[in-house]
Amino acid sequence: MKIDGTPYRSVWVEPSDGWSIRIFDQTQLPWSLEILRLTEPGQVAHAIRSMQVRGAPLIGAVAAYGVALALRQDASTGNLERVVAALGETRPTAINLRWALSRMRGTLHNLPADARIAAAYAEAAAICDDDAETCRRIGENGLPLIEAASQGKDRVNILTHCNAGWIATVDWGTALAPIYMAHDAGLPVHVWVDETRPRNQGAALTAWELGRHGVPHTIIADNAGGHLMQHGQVDLVIVGTDRVTRQGDVANKIGTYLKALAARDNGVPFWVALPHSTLDMSVTDGVAEIPIEERPAAEVTDLTGRTADGRIETIRVAAAGSAAANPAFDVTPARLVTGLITERGRCAASEAGLLGLYPEKA
Amino acid sequence: MKIDGTPYRSVWVEPSDGWSIRIFDQTQLPWSLEILRLTEPGQVAHAIRSMQVRGAPLIGAVAAYGVALALRQDASTGNLERVVAALGETRPTAINLRWALSRMRGTLHNLPADARIAAAYAEAAAICDDDAETCRRIGENGLPLIEAASQGKDRVNILTHCNAGWIATVDWGTALAPIYMAHDAGLPVHVWVDETRPRNQGAALTAWELGRHGVPHTIIADNAGGHLMQHGQVDLVIVGTDRVTRQGDVANKIGTYLKALAARDNGVPFWVALPHSTLDMSVTDGVAEIPIEERPAAEVTDLTGRTADGRIETIRVAAAGSAAANPAFDVTPARLVTGLITERGRCAASEAGLLGLYPEKA
Repeated sequence: MKIDGTPYRSVWVEPSDGWSIRIFDQTQLPWSLEILRLTEPGQVAHAIRSMQVRGAPLIGAVAAYGVALALRQDASTGNLERVVAALGETRPTAINLRWALSRMRGTLHNLPADARIAAAYAEAAAICDDDAETCRRIGENGLPLIEAASQGKDRVNILTHCNAGWIATVDWGTALAPIYMAHDAGLPVHVWVDETRPRNQGAALTAWELGRHGVPHTIIADNAGGHLMQHGQVDLVIVGTDRVTRQGDVANKIGTYLKALAARDNGVPFWVALPHSTLDMSVTDGVAEIPIEERPAAEVTDLTGRTADGRIETIRVAAAGSAAANPAFDVTPARLVTGLITERGRCAASEAGLLGLYPEKA
Repeated sequence: MKIDGTPYRSVWVEPSDGWSIRIFDQTQLPWSLEILRLTEPGQVAHAIRSMQVRGAPLIGAVAAYGVALALRQDASTGNLERVVAALGETRPTAINLRWALSRMRGTLHNLPADARIAAAYAEAAAICDDDAETCRRIGENGLPLIEAASQGKDRVNILTHCNAGWIATVDWGTALAPIYMAHDAGLPVHVWVDETRPRNQGAALTAWELGRHGVPHTIIADNAGGHLMQHGQVDLVIVGTDRVTRQGDVANKIGTYLKALAARDNGVPFWVALPHSTLDMSVTDGVAEIPIEERPAAEVTDLTGRTADGRIETIRVAAAGSAAANPAFDVTPARLVTGLITERGRCAASEAGLLGLYPEKA
């Protein structure tokens, strides 16, 4: 997608050297567009853990390049196993990370060491191209939902939570891909952007993305969505996800479950957009089985932003001495999900629905 | 209640002059305990509108003193009518404001002008004493719920939203009154404090209150409550309210409805604590009829807090150029409310329940 007219992906190989990896430092958005250069796997692990890169599909793509960087240093089988294990531990909830690392390991493990580096870059590039094309198809498959919702209206209101846009993927996004396509097609799209506490990925990242692309949107506190739905101001909800289970349970950013409850209570369709790499058919009951990352308390008690005169400051908003808990994800049971939007089409959030689109995963 | 061992109310007459009004500037909490002196009704209106005082019962009490200050300047009937009208427009959702102003007007209207000032101070003091005693009784009537929930447990987890503590009232609080009593009685209370975006009354005020009193608590993002309930970490929810309708619908801080939905979905009791002055029997359908205040967008996009080196800074956390909407309250339908806790006892959130406790309101 474009930033001020210039096309970007969210991760790429530096053209001038052909091997180092470029990412945006998403912890600096929206106030500063800083492009980082990653040259060794420890930097990749740090980028994922510190959320310089975030978003389930993007984490997988960047981790794949982390494997390539590690093999540049030492292309042995032992080092391949070490980097796959180390990067696999950087974030616990999103399954795409393990999917991408498993794909890299499967491709590279049986190759001779001297063939691994080139193969790793090729496989990481393939993961990126696959993700971009997958997301474009998610957009195509979600677009009819927005077209239908906009019939006879001068504004179609879509609520989203967190950032499942192009900067959470390699390109296009998941939840935002249909929205970009609808907007580009001239549909009167307006997005309610949940700010998504505690890290404000909505207010900082989704609003930034949508604004740079020219999509009308309004930031709201996470608390506001239910009220808007009660008053007919939300036509549909589309969110991304970090892991979808065999029975269609959806792990996503903390607070997604509350919006799904409000959507159900008000008859608002609640759709979840995902690529194949987000499916985890090894897990059935998402609430019981998916590990939920507990992140630092300071993400709740402290906030970073820009002062009116341009300084970046971190402030404590909470009472001194009070502790905070910070579970980063929750699980929305399949019963609350209207349906899933994938690169292969739409389906019910159920085993039957998923196997209809992905019979090879039976 | 006490701050660092010193007993306070949330509003009082300055003893040294006998007529000016003292409040905390709650916009400076939790980082600074500043006590303001109000000497004329314009300052009272500003204090309410700017949320230097907030909390439905406290707003009513301070407005009552605003009438007294106005009459000191001009005790005419015309001025009484003007100040009642002006203060009544400072905040639209909480009904206690109009209740207190109506009570003041009723007491003062038929008095001769030269008797009004003393009567106004007496009536405002009576409103304050009534509120403190009312809240104490709310505490007594809510305490058995916590006692029951704590049976056989080494920790009873109570989730609350916004600030319905002693600084939202004259003393004791509404939702927090039973919690203070339970803690003081030695029950193993732990409070999950919703931070309550966008103004962070939970993280800034409730956490401050509870911390100063020594009640164990943990701040969470508003998004987290559903996840905690799914995992059995919330034994009951107690919130305050700005207005309860004839059929038991509950207007409260934006986001309350989402927590009520999650409580229902997980079988967690959802209780609402209120004094008589919060009842509005003239309204039946809360979602359709209660006006919801729309507050400034900057409350969503900008935050104020303290830097590590002690400076107070305001930062923008949202993307530049993005708009924000800020509905300040939502309405939880009575069907989601386990029951109401009042100074007269507990009842169902229904007309029959309310009239059982308040037959005079039939």
